[in-house]
Amino acid sequence: MNTTRRGLLFVLSSPSGAGKTTITRRLLADDPSLSMSVSVTTRPPRDGEVDGRDYHFIDKRAFDDLIATHALLEYAQVFEHWYGTPLAPVEQALEDGRDMVFDIDWQGAKQVRGRLPNHIVSVFILPPSMTELHDRLRRRAKDSEKVVITRMAKAVDEVSHYDEYDYVLVNNDLEQALVEVKSILSAERLKRTRQLWLVSFVAKLLGPN
Amino acid sequence: MNTTRRGLLFVLSSPSGAGKTTITRRLLADDPSLSMSVSVTTRPPRDGEVDGRDYHFIDKRAFDDLIATHALLEYAQVFEHWYGTPLAPVEQALEDGRDMVFDIDWQGAKQVRGRLPNHIVSVFILPPSMTELHDRLRRRAKDSEKVVITRMAKAVDEVSHYDEYDYVLVNNDLEQALVEVKSILSAERLKRTRQLWLVSFVAKLLGPN
Repeated sequence: MNTTRRGLLFVLSSPSGAGKTTITRRLLADDPSLSMSVSVTTRPPRDGEVDGRDYHFIDKRAFDDLIATHALLEYAQVFEHWYGTPLAPVEQALEDGRDMVFDIDWQGAKQVRGRLPNHIVSVFILPPSMTELHDRLRRRAKDSEKVVITRMAKAVDEVSHYDEYDYVLVNNDLEQALVEVKSILSAERLKRTRQLWLVSFVAKLLGPN
Repeated sequence: MNTTRRGLLFVLSSPSGAGKTTITRRLLADDPSLSMSVSVTTRPPRDGEVDGRDYHFIDKRAFDDLIATHALLEYAQVFEHWYGTPLAPVEQALEDGRDMVFDIDWQGAKQVRGRLPNHIVSVFILPPSMTELHDRLRRRAKDSEKVVITRMAKAVDEVSHYDEYDYVLVNNDLEQALVEVKSILSAERLKRTRQLWLVSFVAKLLGPN
């Protein structure tokens, strides 16, 4: 582990359609020191998704190999597909004292919390209403009504776990939500227990000069 | 206690001259929902200090009465004078779900932490160097060299307690330090455990509409 600072695992969860992906993208664009955890998944790519950027798309056999070799920090099944977080980039980030962002659901967040409790900071983004969420899901290009219904069921399940998170915000306005997420990241970086360099800084401050 | 939100007791400590008073003033000016805790003290007013705004200036006998009637949230002696925080305004703020700012030293912070652990958020502001701090103290109008030496000794004592605080920042640049303090306040307000209204909000979100 890095001796200068304790890297953050910044987990953002929300039901699909509550703005999490946009917020994550903006957060990464505005802070080059952050890196994104790219999940592995057995689900096929959607239109516009790029392998290695949005997900690492792999088959079930490769996924099972990752589980067997303890190469995943967390994994879970959602509907018929599997999702997981590669462990190696996370270990490297913590070794370097860097912060990583995770776009994972409550099941993933729970596993990361269990394994790296001193590093995780978890934020849940709520939609202003489920009607609003339903509208957003319907406005998305290719989603059939059946897909929308399935995602709404998953959304209800996801929201019911909001009370496992450190921070909660309501995305009434995207810009406001982004400012709030950034303030959480900024504040968490100022936590004394994360600033390992402070010990020697204060020793020097108080020592003979 | 308020059932909508859990009010914050936002404690800022730093050695004299590290910029805390300016930061506190700016914080209050920019956020009208915040109120300041005005301490009682037995020390005489300095030039420009206003009774009831900077401190409530009282004599030792009145101070002892406040202690005897449990009217102080915390109190401590610093050099030959006594300082304390009136309890009633704090109780009222928590009852109303409002946030209060405290400009108190490590002894005061420790007592507030002991009595209201679920409400206190503590921030320690470090100077970039003790030389810089010494210069700032000397630049202040009326301080004799003897007063500066005494304050430097107190500053060293104060800094040695930085590791009792939740957040720590170095005031290299006042504007940057103010932004950091504001991000801490903003993030703490987004903590799930402080947003008591979320329970009913989510129940409504997930309930029949």
